[in-house]
Amino acid sequence: MRPMERDGPHSFEAEPLRGRTSVQSALVVGLLAACTACTDLASAPPASAPAATPAAAELRDAVRAYCVAHEGEVLAQLEALLALPNLASDEVEIGRNARELVTLLEERGIRARLLELPGSPPVVFGELVPPGARRTVALYAHYDGQPVAAQAWHSEPWRPVLRDGTLEAGARELTPPYAPHDPTRPDERRLYARSASDDKAPIVAMLTALDALRAMGLAPTVGLQFFFEGEEEAGSPHLAELVRANAATLSADAWLFCDGPVHASRRMQVYFGVRGALDLELTVFGPARALHSGHYGNWAPNPLALLAELVSSMRGADGRVKIAGFYDGLEPITPEERRAIAEAPDLDAELLRSLALARPEGDGEPLAERILLPALNLRGLAGGAVGAQAANAIPTEARASIDFRLVPPQTAEHVRALVEAHVRAQGYSIVHAAPDLDVRRAHARVALLEWGPGYPAGRTPLASPFARALVAAVEDARGEPLVRLPSLGGSVPMFVFQRELGVPVLGLPIVNHDNSQHAADENLRLQNLWDGVLTFAGVMRGLDARWP
Amino acid sequence: MRPMERDGPHSFEAEPLRGRTSVQSALVVGLLAACTACTDLASAPPASAPAATPAAAELRDAVRAYCVAHEGEVLAQLEALLALPNLASDEVEIGRNARELVTLLEERGIRARLLELPGSPPVVFGELVPPGARRTVALYAHYDGQPVAAQAWHSEPWRPVLRDGTLEAGARELTPPYAPHDPTRPDERRLYARSASDDKAPIVAMLTALDALRAMGLAPTVGLQFFFEGEEEAGSPHLAELVRANAATLSADAWLFCDGPVHASRRMQVYFGVRGALDLELTVFGPARALHSGHYGNWAPNPLALLAELVSSMRGADGRVKIAGFYDGLEPITPEERRAIAEAPDLDAELLRSLALARPEGDGEPLAERILLPALNLRGLAGGAVGAQAANAIPTEARASIDFRLVPPQTAEHVRALVEAHVRAQGYSIVHAAPDLDVRRAHARVALLEWGPGYPAGRTPLASPFARALVAAVEDARGEPLVRLPSLGGSVPMFVFQRELGVPVLGLPIVNHDNSQHAADENLRLQNLWDGVLTFAGVMRGLDARWP
Repeated sequence: MRPMERDGPHSFEAEPLRGRTSVQSALVVGLLAACTACTDLASAPPASAPAATPAAAELRDAVRAYCVAHEGEVLAQLEALLALPNLASDEVEIGRNARELVTLLEERGIRARLLELPGSPPVVFGELVPPGARRTVALYAHYDGQPVAAQAWHSEPWRPVLRDGTLEAGARELTPPYAPHDPTRPDERRLYARSASDDKAPIVAMLTALDALRAMGLAPTVGLQFFFEGEEEAGSPHLAELVRANAATLSADAWLFCDGPVHASRRMQVYFGVRGALDLELTVFGPARALHSGHYGNWAPNPLALLAELVSSMRGADGRVKIAGFYDGLEPITPEERRAIAEAPDLDAELLRSLALARPEGDGEPLAERILLPALNLRGLAGGAVGAQAANAIPTEARASIDFRLVPPQTAEHVRALVEAHVRAQGYSIVHAAPDLDVRRAHARVALLEWGPGYPAGRTPLASPFARALVAAVEDARGEPLVRLPSLGGSVPMFVFQRELGVPVLGLPIVNHDNSQHAADENLRLQNLWDGVLTFAGVMRGLDARWP
Repeated sequence: MRPMERDGPHSFEAEPLRGRTSVQSALVVGLLAACTACTDLASAPPASAPAATPAAAELRDAVRAYCVAHEGEVLAQLEALLALPNLASDEVEIGRNARELVTLLEERGIRARLLELPGSPPVVFGELVPPGARRTVALYAHYDGQPVAAQAWHSEPWRPVLRDGTLEAGARELTPPYAPHDPTRPDERRLYARSASDDKAPIVAMLTALDALRAMGLAPTVGLQFFFEGEEEAGSPHLAELVRANAATLSADAWLFCDGPVHASRRMQVYFGVRGALDLELTVFGPARALHSGHYGNWAPNPLALLAELVSSMRGADGRVKIAGFYDGLEPITPEERRAIAEAPDLDAELLRSLALARPEGDGEPLAERILLPALNLRGLAGGAVGAQAANAIPTEARASIDFRLVPPQTAEHVRALVEAHVRAQGYSIVHAAPDLDVRRAHARVALLEWGPGYPAGRTPLASPFARALVAAVEDARGEPLVRLPSLGGSVPMFVFQRELGVPVLGLPIVNHDNSQHAADENLRLQNLWDGVLTFAGVMRGLDARWP
């Protein structure tokens, strides 16, 4: 998630819902037996998507058994990685993270190196191309983390702490050596640390998947590229340039964004897109100095009234954006997308209840459908003062902070132009830097528009060959249907890879939704780690067979 | 001005404008000669309003001469009063102020005492009824002051400092004994201290006027009651009860509110009314906890969008209040009021320029006319965050702070009912205390309305006998036409006296408009003090003759 996506302790997740993990199969089969079975899988016919084979089930059982047997090692490796502070701005520590990742890749026989641009944390890049692999898939994750407000944490952000459940439920801290968990039940332990979920857990899950395969004597059936970014939480300012500069190296046929959470029902999900993002700070002006509201009220223009009217002209309380042309030419929701939404667990009613909402915006469409539309979100209004601080004054200015969410084919440039045309149509002169008093004297309505750079949505059709192959491979790996989310509501820079490399990009998240990412007490539910290993092992091993 | 009228350093005043004081007559006539002349004035025929008599001019000159001769004493008295801290909440110091005022009144032969209610600062009450006086007029002022943010001051708030001009102009501090000012020029020195203008200067001006008359061997021709309130800046919470309890004592035929400033042109003004006031804190609600704006944006209701739409439905950016019935039955602006406005110096264009405004709200009506209308002022909007603090979140609630300004015959109760009907008509359930989550689950739109007590406007017709008499007496005293302001835009509790005592109440301010009242570096322009003495002496001596 991009850096502006900081909204306190409830960033991504909804409140823990009543959804249960799918009860784990209790089968723990012998590792050797599983390996024998898996060797067959490698030679399974690819072509059209077959039903999950018995071989897939055997691989699943074998990987589970591997995780049970190596639980302590895997946790130690993840904890070591989480013990490295990882702010993108901390050059020294970010370098330690990068070197550690190079080591972890090389220990697994992966050719690894740093992709660098001056002034930015390096991308850790690794490549593993088994002989005869037809295709290569790139796995994206990031190793930097959000800034921490350490005083809000229950334990130090970079001292990983394992607890026997959630803090909210009053969990106790566990100390190593940890007792192994009972594999007949979901592993509800939580590992608390910055980046435990976002986004170091996927890295460790990938590496563990390779270890598990190797332990079985198996190699991936697709080539793998590992791309671990070091400044995602700082807004990926160098990502596009770096991808462009290394386009020849970044030769994968498709990319998987291993960031974000699984479905709030705890079902595995794949996402096929994200919304784009565009930030706007909008300021309108009143008198050059605050005025007594009695003596000047309804003579001196009130910037709060101007702002409320302008903002209301842009977006209704029902969520509808009223800016001319805003919805023009949008790609319609496809029948496949509607089907995917209909098939996903419906948590909307439960979510409304937990949020104390009587009804959502829109006409009752499900959340997953609403986020296929572009949005104008008001994230702040400010001017004058309220409550005990309120003074009888007409303030000098008023400001709204807005984030737009874009969907294909909207671009930041296009939305910017539509918004500016709308603001002008309301009688405003637009400036892009603080206007001087002469400008304010000359124009009854002056609006200062300060735009962020913005970026477009990413979206891959659910029916595309790679999308179908990935879904099938993951369902094989997990042994159950997954949730197909046509788009995340949030924004990650998928578009960079789509635009610069012209290949499909899908989202393959593994961590729990209730992870407090970006906030205090970020945590990883361990069962999500084990399931993640299963997912990556299944993809590495089974994707080729599903990929036409 | 009431306590909520805190709006930073520019509370009442506009920026110093280019307006010049009326050049003072250079005549300084011998005190004795003037006194002889004035004795005649006392026996002048009253009945219908005559043109200013030669006797009035002589009184004027004599009072001016008195002020020149006693400049040092008067300043010392005012400085001693300003050296007493005077927060209404400071029981000890407020008591010292009250005792000092009793002493000052008694030193002038005025019967003085405290009017008290448990738990409130006393009103200092004094009475001086010369034998044979037909009528009595009460002079209202207040001796408490606004709280101070001492660190913002250039000198200690309760250590009066005389400077040779304004701080803005880089004035130097003067030290006693002060050199007398050149009486052929306006006294542009400024005395800096809390309450220098608001509202201790009028008290000292009244007392000095009595001293000047006595020095001439003259007595007032009307009975005088002095009513010095001690908790005006705390909102006068006991005023109505105290007035009611002492209605028999408060027997004056009319009241003069000696609070507020003269016209921004530095011309003397009388105001015939004030707007009433009514405060509202309005809160609307979104999800029970902040949500990620990407993942939930345009599904979870956004309270900022609700608030902007609700507020815009109540009041246009043009100042027009859209609440049904808000303007119904208002007393129309009279031809006399329009004439008074047309006759006043027109500073609107200059004011717009200094405020960097291209045009005012409304259709170009002058400021003095716009404030004869009721108003809905937005004094604050808050919710989420803007600028560097902005997070991609849908906040849980949004709040507007509103102050209504009322005009006759609007009452707080009536406006409250209209507003609540309007809010309901927008689909809101109204609560008057924070709603619990079940209430929010049950209603898509919940608005929390927290009302202040509010009070109605005060207004006296310009054509009423007492109003005409006062204007004539003040013009006699000052020797020049004054500004007749049909109503102040702001609010002082005139209505208490009108309602409880059933007598006319007019405003007779003396201090400069550019006085930073309620803010740091409050100050009094000394020429306003000398002109104030002239005004009060003229009223005490000449009002009876003008009062039919």
